[in-house]
Amino acid sequence: MIQERIKNSLRDVHDFPKPGIVFKDITPILKDQKLCSEIVDEFVERLKHLEFDAIAGIESRGFLFGLMLANKLNKPFIPIRKAGKLPYKTIQQSYDLEYGSATIEIHADAFQEGQKILIHDDLLATGGTVEATSLLIQKMKGQIAGFSFLISLNFLNGEQKLNKFSKNNISLASFT
Amino acid sequence: MIQERIKNSLRDVHDFPKPGIVFKDITPILKDQKLCSEIVDEFVERLKHLEFDAIAGIESRGFLFGLMLANKLNKPFIPIRKAGKLPYKTIQQSYDLEYGSATIEIHADAFQEGQKILIHDDLLATGGTVEATSLLIQKMKGQIAGFSFLISLNFLNGEQKLNKFSKNNISLASFT
Repeated sequence: MIQERIKNSLRDVHDFPKPGIVFKDITPILKDQKLCSEIVDEFVERLKHLEFDAIAGIESRGFLFGLMLANKLNKPFIPIRKAGKLPYKTIQQSYDLEYGSATIEIHADAFQEGQKILIHDDLLATGGTVEATSLLIQKMKGQIAGFSFLISLNFLNGEQKLNKFSKNNISLASFT
Repeated sequence: MIQERIKNSLRDVHDFPKPGIVFKDITPILKDQKLCSEIVDEFVERLKHLEFDAIAGIESRGFLFGLMLANKLNKPFIPIRKAGKLPYKTIQQSYDLEYGSATIEIHADAFQEGQKILIHDDLLATGGTVEATSLLIQKMKGQIAGFSFLISLNFLNGEQKLNKFSKNNISLASFT
């Protein structure tokens, strides 16, 4: 099963980015392109009944499988980036971090009003960045078609933040 | 020809990131997945006689076509990231920017001694980050197999910084 293969390939790094956190390192997966292809195929299979117009991938790790998935499904890929990185006219959304805040941006012409956007990132943790991305898309009058993640850390309850935008929430590997 | 299609799809954004710079915005290309597929196919064609063991993609935009290319060629993908982002043991390299400096990192187990690494980024400008990536790979006793870029700004002479590492330097679209 793909979930087990993903879990077996992930590397747990303890105390990163700070003491007490166990970080799920995806770099061993990126070394195994056969597994990467199977991951993309599994996303495609799990998304086949979902209707959407474009995939928004969150910088930086959401760029990895986000673009591969967009390419496989022949959908536009929209980069969501940290403030100051996108060159053209942007729409911004700030959100709270444990200490301080962060701001993400999308190009103002990234999609058209009413289009359905699938939001992609490699990992769902507390959901702050994904919630901010959802708010960005709503600001631009887009619809949230759903969410796709390689990994979900369910014990952090990020999904609760996302349910109000869409209940279509796909994770290939979940940790409870 | 692919070069013309890429050039016609790029958006020039004036005075970004600062006055006097004309930034080549690749986001229109990312909307056009047919073009993205042709870009990957062209890279594959241009790299078919080059021998290498893995592709190192530079954060963030080098993650986009870097992983697609690695997947198409069934080679491991190695992320090169800004300092503090990679969770496992890393090797660092600092380099000068116009004002100040920056540091990039690679995982210490990203590849094995003697392996041949293709370095990928979306755009070659002055070449500072790519040079630092080359030095990182040499620190880890890897060989630089070559470089691949979607776009090269030849008038900034970045290629001169790279010739000492490898003369295999592929750009799909060059601006003179």
